[in-house]
Order: sequence, then C-alpha cells, then structure tokens
Amino acid sequence: MAVELAADEAHHFRHVLRLGANAEIEVFNGLGHQWTARVRPFRKRGPIVCDVTAMATAAAEPHVFVTLAIGALKGDQMDTVVRDTTMLGVQTIVPIVSEHVATSRRAAHKEQARERWHRIAVASAKQCGRAFVPVIMPALRFVALFDAFDADAVLMCVEPALPADATTELAVVPRPKRALAFIGPEGGWSKAELDFARQRNARLIHLGPRTLRAETAPTVLLSALWTVWGW
Amino acid sequence: MAVELAADEAHHFRHVLRLGANAEIEVFNGLGHQWTARVRPFRKRGPIVCDVTAMATAAAEPHVFVTLAIGALKGDQMDTVVRDTTMLGVQTIVPIVSEHVATSRRAAHKEQARERWHRIAVASAKQCGRAFVPVIMPALRFVALFDAFDADAVLMCVEPALPADATTELAVVPRPKRALAFIGPEGGWSKAELDFARQRNARLIHLGPRTLRAETAPTVLLSALWTVWGW
Repeated sequence: MAVELAADEAHHFRHVLRLGANAEIEVFNGLGHQWTARVRPFRKRGPIVCDVTAMATAAAEPHVFVTLAIGALKGDQMDTVVRDTTMLGVQTIVPIVSEHVATSRRAAHKEQARERWHRIAVASAKQCGRAFVPVIMPALRFVALFDAFDADAVLMCVEPALPADATTELAVVPRPKRALAFIGPEGGWSKAELDFARQRNARLIHLGPRTLRAETAPTVLLSALWTVWGW
Repeated sequence: MAVELAADEAHHFRHVLRLGANAEIEVFNGLGHQWTARVRPFRKRGPIVCDVTAMATAAAEPHVFVTLAIGALKGDQMDTVVRDTTMLGVQTIVPIVSEHVATSRRAAHKEQARERWHRIAVASAKQCGRAFVPVIMPALRFVALFDAFDADAVLMCVEPALPADATTELAVVPRPKRALAFIGPEGGWSKAELDFARQRNARLIHLGPRTLRAETAPTVLLSALWTVWGW
C-alpha cells in the first residue's frame, strides 16, 4: 500500500526532520490505524509518498466514546482543551454556542478556528501515540446538543456551590458505550439550563470542592471517568 | 482581630479592585483559615489593615496529604503545574533535582523561581476558593526524597510502555494519610531509578495508555487519586 503524506506532514518531514528517501516512518490515518512505512525517493518540491511495510500498534482507544460539549472559552483556552483532551482519549468535541444566530462573518471566523483546532488535535495525537484524531464539530446550541448525540449517559459538570444531594457520584454511573459530557462556561450554568438538563436525564456531577479553571475541567473530568470506567 | 494585607494584596486592593475604606473582603492565611473582614480607613500610601468580622468557609481540603515530587520541566511548564495542582488540592510540591552539586548562582536562580511559584500558588488558591497554599520545597535529589517525607503510600507514575503486570491498579491502593507521588521527567525514569523505587516499596502506576505531557500528568494523577480516595 502506498500513502501520500499530507502537505503539512510533508513539509515537516523535509524541513524539520530533514529526512531523505528510504527513511522509516510511522503513519496514521486519524481513524485508529497506524503503520510503519518507507519513504520513496522524492523531488525537491511535490508530494512525498511512502510504502507501508507493516501494521503498527497505536495506543489503545478508550472503551467509552466520550463527546465533550464545552461552553465558550476565551482566547487560546480552547487550544489547550483540544490538545489535552486529545491526549486523554476524547472522541468528539463540540463547542456550545449561546448566540441565537451567527453572522456569516463570525461563522467564517469559527470555521478557521475549527481548522486550527483540528491541526492541534492531529499534533497532540502524534505526540501521545494515538492513531485516532478527535472530531471537532461546529458549535451547537445547548438544547440541540441533547438530541444531536446518541448517548447512553449524559453528564453535566457543575460548580462546587451546588449542593451535594443534587449531584450523582461518578462511581454509581454504569459504564456506558457512549457518553455526552457537558463542561459549563466560566460563569457556570443558568438555572434554566440545569432544569432542562435534569428533564433530559442528565446526571449532575461535581469535580471536587474547588472551583476549576474552565480549560482544566475537561482534563479532570476525563481522568475521573477513566479511573471509574477503566483506561 | 486586625489583619494587615500583604504588600501585593494591598496593591491589588488599591490599584486593581480600586476599593475604599469599609469594603467587605475575604482574607485567608494560607494555612486553611478564611475570614470575612472590613477594611479600615487607610492613607494613599502605607499599609491596609482590616478587622475580621466572621469566620468564612473555604473549600474543603482533601483527606489525604499529597506531596508531588516532579522531575525537571522546561520553561514555564512548572508554572502550569503549580497553578493546576494547587487547584487540585496538592499539599506540597518538590522539584526533583538530578545534578549532584548546584552552583551558588543556580541556587539563587532557583530561589527566585521558588518565590514566583509561591506567588502562583497564592493566586491559584484565591481563584479556586482554597484557604491553604501548597508549600513549594527547594529541589531534592531523587533518592533523598524517599527519606524526606513520612508517607504511608509512595506512588510512581510510569510511562505507558512499561508492562501492565509491573504496575499496580490505583483502586487497590488503600487510602493513606500521606502520599508521596512521583511524576517523571519528559524522558521517563531510568532503570536504576525504577529499581530503587521498587526497593523502597513504591507502587508503579499507569495513567492510561497514551503518553501524557509532563505538565499535564500531575493534573491527571490528582484527579485519579481523588476519584479513588474521595475528593
């Protein structure tokens, strides 16, 4: 089987790694498969093609498909979330949009952001030894999210201020096949959002008594989930 | 009881919050106690003093005192570790030094770094609602660490490459009073270090099948520990 490197990987191969023909490399398709491959002779410009020599073993994927729905974050915080949750085995990431209508300009801007997040996810997958690249979805409204994913467990991370008897211990949530997990915006959830989530059988969970930074909460959540459900 | 604000908190009060006399504030002593207080009239320059009006409830401290021993990190990665593990309830942080002799200049540099990390820990404690500020120790050599702390559980996070039968499941480690947890350098542990740790009854643990960034591993570890031992 012959494989052509994606343009930015070809650039990385030529100008950063500075490798030549016959180099042994590992390639992955982002869908969970990884191979060793040998690079064919190539020109100064143009594509780099390699021949697959063997299957390679990537890091095992989690037993549970987790979709992370995450409220709007400032600046480059979302970059951190994409990088770290890729490393922690997330399957899908969906930003939660609160505006009712996105202008076309904002939509274009968001598409650019989504491409950047995809590149960050690819880089993180390479670094952590994962052959699956999480899917970054376009933003969805909060209520739409509940219907968009076929999940047999819906979890909603809530602020420490919420009384403990309103929340569920993670340990009692049976391991699902697919989980949908919500991380709120910095300001927390509104009462209407919490009520809606409860009506849709979401389980409210605490991630400890301290207020977590929004960009770190997804890492804490996934670490807790795998501790309970198995890595 | 009257309390004088530390110099940088007084600066923050005057020039960032821009509050005046009689303002109601929360103060904490970094050792687990927090109060509400009322600010006395103050001059343009000079100290700001307030009168404690009531005890306040800070976020609960974990049941287990965790000391985090962490290998050398590049650039500002240690800042991230201090910020995030403060938020996740660490009690003590000790950098692991690998050099045999530190020059006086390097030692001075390290003392400066330690002061910066202390300020980061204070800021993170304020942000997460914690009234205890973790202690940042001077760096210690790897072998010295095993004798420096009175821990009834010693955990050592290892690379996913280490076979599973060499490691212990976190769930079977009984909840200790004091735990000492090692996070390795980017390059992982040497065989000599692993052998030494085993001789000293350290339990080797995996944090999942993917290679974690060194600055994120402490967050994953603490999240896993509290999931097993209780937040």
